[in-house]
Formats: sequence, structure tokens, C-alpha cells
Amino acid sequence: MSVLGTVSSPADLRTLDQASLTTLAAEIREFLVATVASTGGHLGPNLGVVELTLAVHRVFRSPVDPVIFDTGHQSYVHKILTGRRDLFDTLRRFDGLSGYPSREESPHDWTESSHASASLSCADGLSRAFALTGQDDRCVVAVIGDGALTGGMAWEALNNIAEGDGRRLVVVVNDNGLSYSPTVGGLVGPRRASVPRKLFGDLGLTYLGPVDGHDLEALERTLRQARDHGGPVIVHTVTEKGHGYAPAVNDDIDRMHSTGIIDPVSGQRRTGGGRTWTGVFADELTAVGAEREDIVAVTAAMAGPTGLDRFAARFPERTVDVGIAEQHAVTCAAGLATGGLHPVVAVYSTFLNRAFDQLLMDVALLHLPVTLVLDRAGVTGPDGASHHGMWDLSVTGTVPGIRVAAPRDGARTAAALRRCTAVSDGPTVLRFPKGEVPADVPALRSTPDFDILADGGEVTADGLEVLVVNYGALTAQSFAAASALVDAGHHVTVIDPVWVTPVADSLVDAARDVDLVITVEDNGVHGGAGQQFHRALVAAEVDIPVRYLALEQRFLTHGTRAEILAESRLDPTSAGRRAADWVEHLRR
Amino acid sequence: MSVLGTVSSPADLRTLDQASLTTLAAEIREFLVATVASTGGHLGPNLGVVELTLAVHRVFRSPVDPVIFDTGHQSYVHKILTGRRDLFDTLRRFDGLSGYPSREESPHDWTESSHASASLSCADGLSRAFALTGQDDRCVVAVIGDGALTGGMAWEALNNIAEGDGRRLVVVVNDNGLSYSPTVGGLVGPRRASVPRKLFGDLGLTYLGPVDGHDLEALERTLRQARDHGGPVIVHTVTEKGHGYAPAVNDDIDRMHSTGIIDPVSGQRRTGGGRTWTGVFADELTAVGAEREDIVAVTAAMAGPTGLDRFAARFPERTVDVGIAEQHAVTCAAGLATGGLHPVVAVYSTFLNRAFDQLLMDVALLHLPVTLVLDRAGVTGPDGASHHGMWDLSVTGTVPGIRVAAPRDGARTAAALRRCTAVSDGPTVLRFPKGEVPADVPALRSTPDFDILADGGEVTADGLEVLVVNYGALTAQSFAAASALVDAGHHVTVIDPVWVTPVADSLVDAARDVDLVITVEDNGVHGGAGQQFHRALVAAEVDIPVRYLALEQRFLTHGTRAEILAESRLDPTSAGRRAADWVEHLRR
Repeated sequence: MSVLGTVSSPADLRTLDQASLTTLAAEIREFLVATVASTGGHLGPNLGVVELTLAVHRVFRSPVDPVIFDTGHQSYVHKILTGRRDLFDTLRRFDGLSGYPSREESPHDWTESSHASASLSCADGLSRAFALTGQDDRCVVAVIGDGALTGGMAWEALNNIAEGDGRRLVVVVNDNGLSYSPTVGGLVGPRRASVPRKLFGDLGLTYLGPVDGHDLEALERTLRQARDHGGPVIVHTVTEKGHGYAPAVNDDIDRMHSTGIIDPVSGQRRTGGGRTWTGVFADELTAVGAEREDIVAVTAAMAGPTGLDRFAARFPERTVDVGIAEQHAVTCAAGLATGGLHPVVAVYSTFLNRAFDQLLMDVALLHLPVTLVLDRAGVTGPDGASHHGMWDLSVTGTVPGIRVAAPRDGARTAAALRRCTAVSDGPTVLRFPKGEVPADVPALRSTPDFDILADGGEVTADGLEVLVVNYGALTAQSFAAASALVDAGHHVTVIDPVWVTPVADSLVDAARDVDLVITVEDNGVHGGAGQQFHRALVAAEVDIPVRYLALEQRFLTHGTRAEILAESRLDPTSAGRRAADWVEHLRR
Repeated sequence: MSVLGTVSSPADLRTLDQASLTTLAAEIREFLVATVASTGGHLGPNLGVVELTLAVHRVFRSPVDPVIFDTGHQSYVHKILTGRRDLFDTLRRFDGLSGYPSREESPHDWTESSHASASLSCADGLSRAFALTGQDDRCVVAVIGDGALTGGMAWEALNNIAEGDGRRLVVVVNDNGLSYSPTVGGLVGPRRASVPRKLFGDLGLTYLGPVDGHDLEALERTLRQARDHGGPVIVHTVTEKGHGYAPAVNDDIDRMHSTGIIDPVSGQRRTGGGRTWTGVFADELTAVGAEREDIVAVTAAMAGPTGLDRFAARFPERTVDVGIAEQHAVTCAAGLATGGLHPVVAVYSTFLNRAFDQLLMDVALLHLPVTLVLDRAGVTGPDGASHHGMWDLSVTGTVPGIRVAAPRDGARTAAALRRCTAVSDGPTVLRFPKGEVPADVPALRSTPDFDILADGGEVTADGLEVLVVNYGALTAQSFAAASALVDAGHHVTVIDPVWVTPVADSLVDAARDVDLVITVEDNGVHGGAGQQFHRALVAAEVDIPVRYLALEQRFLTHGTRAEILAESRLDPTSAGRRAADWVEHLRR
């Protein structure tokens, strides 16, 4: 039997000798490569923390001592060691194992979000709670990457932790020199190997390290010292992302930070083949950048995933990577715009929430021309609740003077980017989903403010006039709703304004003489595109029944995009059924 | 003629000798005390930066060299020196001088927001823009307090600035040891006088200082050195908040951080007399805290203004001041809740935007019982655009599982706090406005889910049945709308659910048989209480016309609360007129 086969809880680790542990580490790596190759997932980060996780679980007593993984995509080894190994063939699948810590899965998991830099704040609170309730024997452990330390939250937390005399809190810095791409900045950047010791010392924090993050004995020795220190302490470990798996170590893109399905031996990624939304944006931005010297690209450590790497390759001097620091990204963009440039900030939709205040107060209040490009808007898939981009329309809708585009296809994405970058008096937003871009969805005919995508149906005696307003990529749903209604004897027009906000007067006029409006979007229903259009109708005192086909206001799980849309009753079939039901009720 | 009388632009400063400058500093202080005494405003911070501002404007060439004030309430001296002295009797008044930098007022002003810690990011972007556009002779100056350095954004920016080799950027740290209350934390806390030099040096930033912030010659000498350095540099100045005005220096609350109208000689504040919303909350929280040991209070450097000082005085060990760090405040609260406690985080409504992602991902996703108390919700007054609390209902409405209360009076505020702290399975929010709490508004009668405040009117032949739904403190507006409609021959019921979310089924039922629903609130209309109720109606397929009495989705100016409500057509008179107009149109 393998050593791995004998381990079903952290307690099982504590009886193993060093030789067995070395074997175990190799077996875990083999297991990780084999399973993640078939499911996809965060391979590189987990290969880098095998010894670290083993050492943590040998030295501390999870769950009595909470172990909190920042960001959380490096918790696979932790999951393997806490009784979830057998579930790894369901990793990131619908109803399967989450790719992040999950409190539902195990008492060993304390957090769930995958947004970076939050672990230290949570650990600070938790250690305060233990101190206040007399549980002084419990030690809180936070494992955080050097990349996550570039996020301001982490520094806010360190400032507080530094005052935590007597609280038992161990911050394990997993320093692999990488965020997704190499970590930037003066604080933790690669140019400053000697910084951490001095820096953390200056903060009044006890610093241990640096220690080789693949040397189990050294790690355990240092962690024991930290555990017994009796106050907040930083343990600086140096690891190699992808360690022990040549295809990852040699991957010069991101050390297999996150992969789809791969060949386990070669590490070869299966190419999706199709063109992505990201790719359409990336090419068009590069084209605009070639025409205009005032275009500057800003990324928060995600140049590759957001497609900015193409722009960066051609215009390195006009590309700014600020680290995992969305707040700074947006306000730095405000500064760039104040200086006469037109910044394009590309972030995942869900991460914009980190910079909402900055968008509002540092950009919009000053009417600055900053373009935000929100990739991974709508339902994303296997990363689960904290990666779905279902908040951005609700949030951007609050921002005075903003213009927000949700194009339905590649052609409109490229055109919308051009319109966004042509605006000079306020913020603009371009949102689009993850994955392959569908074939263009042509307009039957166009008006200045919206495209008419479909217009048909023979109206029966008690048939209704229905307007379907499509926002973004769910055109199949819009057409399915229309089709179901046409089948039921109604006349339906499907239109697409591309722009969620502002709402054109002509769009309001289009709703004046219909019996029902149905809006379609992949944002949360609260304050989404549908409610924004409805608000314009209310303001114009147009009292037509409106129905929203949108995501319910709840956290969505992980799975394929299709599975999650179906669970949310937002797949084409559900869209058709719901539309038909609504009309049926309306006629009664 | 006074020296001050000869200064209408920074250029005028450069010809003055030291004796004249000393006189000028004294005259500016006299002017500040005299004017702010009659208008109210941020007295202490501005008295502390007189010499600093003089020195900055003598050494740098504003506006060619942009001077950016973090937070901005310490820009009065800057305003005096840039041609706006004569407008100071209109300070913070409607149509008068803003209490913060304002790009409309002067080319010497580069930002507008009053949210802390943003200046360095803006300066970073601006200096990048100058470098990219060949304007290498321009130097960017940011003036930031030690308190603002506890905010994570500032650290994100410093991490980037540290890499800005060759960019001309001077960060002036105005270190007075105070945020509002004494600055906390290991980074910049009072216990660590020697930290800044080491810390900034570790980041790779050139550090000059500390320099006495009231010694003009020393300041100028250091600033000149910084100006000519040719790369990013930190100038550490030590100032005294309230300097030169005994009532401020001796004020042990907050050194007259922000005052209403005062007696200029004694510094005596005119007491408002009445009980405030903040006071009601503070007393009730202290009472709940006396009953329950699991109640913990969390503040982001605002214990005084949010009323937490009362709780803190009784339960110091259960009070956490995290510094100006809202992100950490909320996620630290998540950690406290994970540890079994019930944290109450009290912040100004507008500052919650800094912690939206944390509320969503670190609290709500984990169903943690954290209570957020949002003071200064709705229209606040003289602080202007960045202080009005008009976003919180829009933002909290996106959060799955949240419960949000907007009580109309003191009795309901106290009761709502009790209900919030009794919830154990998710976040709760209590929002209330600034200022004196009105007399309680009793219910005519109550149902389990809402109070009926008024119910009357003789319905004429073509009269309508109207439901007015009141949210929060604008009961006068709700009654005015009702009254106008009753006068016009309609029957009106005014109800108040107190809770914005969730929307009770019985509230939806109450709307089923009416002809019109009017919602009343002092949040922005996008995703506000009205749209949340409307969404519940849509979900129930109740197609009654709805009208929103809410703040328009635009930035509001400064002035009295009454002036701003009137300008927003949300004063009682306007509410009555708009309600009558709506009904008139509906009948046509």
C-alpha cells in the first residue's frame, strides 16, 4: 500500500518517519498531476506547497488550530490530507469537490472565498476571538503567497497583527516570486531578496526564515519555533511553483498556475481551438494602441489571463502591472487619465468589487476617461462562487455618468471597445464572459440605439405583443424565449441595445406599445440590466409589465457554465418555459 | 495691509522674506479660526499644515507641479493661497466653496474625493503619465497623513512607487500621530517613532526627515532636496494638529478635527442639544453589550464619530480599532464571527464601499453573523459628494442572504439593532442618517411585517388607491406625498416595513389591490429600496405601477441637508407635487 493510502487525517501524518514523508510527498505530487490532468485546476500552486502543507499539518492541530489558505487555490494538498482524496475525480465539477476551501466539505476549512489578500484579516479576527474567549491554546495559521502581499488588505492586517502581543498567530509566507506573473513592486519584488526580514522586523513582527519550502525537516523545525513563540510571527518560506513536475517548472507562462485538461506526462494543454472573448478584446486593444499613443493598459497581476500580454508585448512602456492590487489599479488609472492618457484597466468582473469605491470616487466623480474591461462576466464555471462575474452590472449601475457595454458577440465587442476608448468625459465599461466567443449574431436591422435581432410571430386572437431585450451573451436564451412565445401565438421582437447604461429614449419608446417586456442577462437580478431598463420605464411613466431573466441573487456553485445556467433556470430551455409561463399568467 | 492681503497665488509667496512668512502663517491661522468658527469645518487638520502648505507652494510650481492632498480636508490653506480666500465665508455652503479640493474651483486642485489613502495611487498614475508624455520637468507632490497610511491602498501605491525609478514624485507624510483618534498599528503607530525611516528605506524609497513641520526654513530645505532628487522620495514631517490655537491643541477629543460653528476665542462648540441617531445606536449597543459577552465592536479609526466610544469606554477589551482600514475591519469581523462572536462594525455609509468585496466574499458567502452599522446614510450635508451615504442600499442589495434595516426613528433604530444582533446565520445592516433623531413616528397599527403609519382619504369617483411605502427617515416626505394625494381625492395608505431586505410576502400582498405604489427613500434610485420592492413585485407577477421617490443617480453637492433634498426634489413639498403629478398622468 502506498503511504498516501494510509493518510486520512492530519493525525496520521504525525506517526510517519522522514523516509515515509518523503515518499508521501512524491505520491501526493503524482496524485495531483494525475487527477488535475483529467479535471483541470490549479496545478502549479499545489505542487509548490506539498512539503509546506505536510509540515503545517504535522506541527499544528487542525482544526483546533485553524489553517487558513489565502486565495485558497493552493488547498488541494490540504484537502488530500484531510480526508477528501477519494473525491478528487470530482474536483471543480458540479456537485463535486470545490477547488477552494469549503466549510461544507470539512471542519478543516475555515474560509471559502478565492479573492486574494484576505487571509490575514480573517486570521487576525479569529485570533482575537480566541484571545477574548479564553482559548489561548489555539494557534491560528495563515498561509499567504508573496503575490497576495501586494494587496492592500494584507498590509492593513499586518498593521493590526503587529499589535497583537500575546495572540498566537503564525503567518506563513509562501514566497515563490510569482503572483500569476512575477510579483511586482518594491515591497516584495524579486529585486529585493533581503527585504522581508527587515520589513517585517520593522513592523514589530517576529520574523523566522527564509526557510527552504521543500525541506520538510527545516520547515517543521521553523514552524515549531513559530508555534511556541507565543505571539504573532512571520515564517518566510521559499518555494518553487510547480515543484517536482518538469512540465510545470519549465512552463514559462505561469508555471501551470491554472490548467484545463492536460496530458499528464507531457503537460501539454489541450488547445481549445476557438477564438475567445479575451482574444477578441486583446487584438482590438492592440490595434487601438497602435493607432493612439494615449492608450495605456493596466493590469492587477493578470496580464496573461486578461489578454493584456499581447498589448504589453507590443507596447511594454505603456503597460502597467500593479500587482494584486485592484484598488491601486483603478486610482492609478485615474491619475493616468488626469495626466491626459486613456487607461484601459482589464480585470476579472468579480475583482472589480475590490475597487468599487475607487471607480466611484476617484474616477467617476472627476469625470475621468478610464475604460474598465471586465473579463469573466456572468457565469464562469469551475471556480465557483467567488469567481462568477454576476455583480458588475449592479455595481456599475450606481456610478453616475458611467457607460456600460455588454456586447453579444465578437464583432460588437471590438466595436464597443472602440466606443469606450473614444469617450473622453467619464468612465466606460466593457463586460464579456469567459470562454470561446460564438459566431457573430447579425442584426435583422439596426437603429441608432439598438439592433433588432428577430421580429416575428402571427398574433392570434388573444395574442400579445412582447419585447425581448437581450443584454450580452445569452442570445440563445433570448431566441428561445422568443420562439416559445411565437409558438404560443404571440408577436415577439428581440432587440439588443449592447449598452446597458445609459438607456436610450428610443429603447423606452420601443416598449411603449407592447404588452410585456422580457429582459435577458447573466448578471444578478438586483440592479442588473433588466432593472436598469425598468427604471428608465418607470421614470418615463411607462407602466408595462416587465420580467427579468437574470441570475438569482444567491451565490452560485461550481460546475460547467451550462450546468450552472440550468440550475439557475437560465439555460435556453428554461428561458423558453419561463417566458411562456409568464405570458400565460398575464393573460389570465 | 496684512501680508495675507498681498497673496493671491503661490507666485506671490516666493518673494516674501522669512519674517513676512512668519507673519503670514500667523495671519492664516487667525483667518482660519475666524472663518471656520462661523462656517464649521475641518479646523484642526488645517491649523496643523500652515507651514507645510506654505513651504510646498514656495518650493513647487503648482499647478505645473500637481499638489495632491490625501483625503482633502486639509486643503484650506492651499485654497487660501490659490486665490480663494474671499470665498471662505461660503465654505461648505450650498453653491459655496467646497471643503475639499474641487477641480471646478481651481486648476491648482487635482482630485475631489475625501476618501482616505487614495492620493498616492493618483500621484503614481500622474507621474507615470508625465514620464510617458515627456513632461519630465513636472514633479508630483502628494501630502498624506500618517492615519491614511494605515489604509491598504496607500501600501499598494507605495509598492508601485518604489519601482518608479526616475519618476519625480514627492510623498510628504504629514505625521501628527492622529487619524481621527490616535493612529493605531505596528506600521505607523505611536509606539514606533523610528519605524518610518527604516520602513520606507526597506521599500527602496529615499527617505528624508523627520523634519519639524512648523519650521518653515527646515521644511523648504528638505522639500527642495526632495524636488531635486530625481526619483520617488518620502519627506517625513512631524506636525501638531491644531497648532497655534490653544482650544484645538488642548481638545482631547480630536483636536477639533471637524467642528460645527464655534466661539472663535474659547473654541466652545455650540451644543446641538437634541439626541442624535448615533447616540441612540451608541446607547443601545452598550446595553446589548452589557447583556451579551459575545458582542464585539469594530471601528475604522472612527470610534468617536460613530458612537462606539461609549461601548469602548465600558468594554475596551471588546473594542477593536483597526485604523483607516475598512477592508480589514469587515474581514477581521468575519474572523471574529468565525470564532463565535457577534461583531458590530460601525462605519459611515459611504465608506462601506471600500469593503463591499469583503462583505460579499468574506462575510456573506460564509453566512457569518456580522452586523454593519451604517451611520451618515442618505444626504449628509456640508461634506459634499464623497460623504453622502446614497450607495449603501444599492450595494447591500446585491449581497445574498443579507438583512437590511432602515428605521424611521429612534425607537425603531434601537429595536432594529437588537434584531440585527439576534441574527446568527448571515450579515445584517442597520442604516440611519446624520444628525438629530426626530420624535418617534408611531404606527397607527402594526402587522408582523410592517407598520401602518397613515390610512385615509375619501375616494372620489375617479380616485385611486395608492400605497406609499416609507423607508427610513423621510417620513415627512411620505406624509407629504400622502397628503397631496388625499387632497386630490385618493385613498392613501402609508406603510413602513423598516426592513428593506428581505421583502416580506405580506408586503407584496399589500400592493396587490392598489392602483399605484410610491416608494420613499434617501438612497440612490438604482437598486435602492424602491427597486428592491419592485423586484419582489415583478417576481410575484404583480404588475402595479410603481414610482420611486429617491435620490437621482448623480453626485450631490454640499450644503444643508434641506437644501440638497430640495435640489434633489426630495423635500416634502416636492414629494407632494411629484406624487400628485404621477397620479394625474396615470389617470389620463
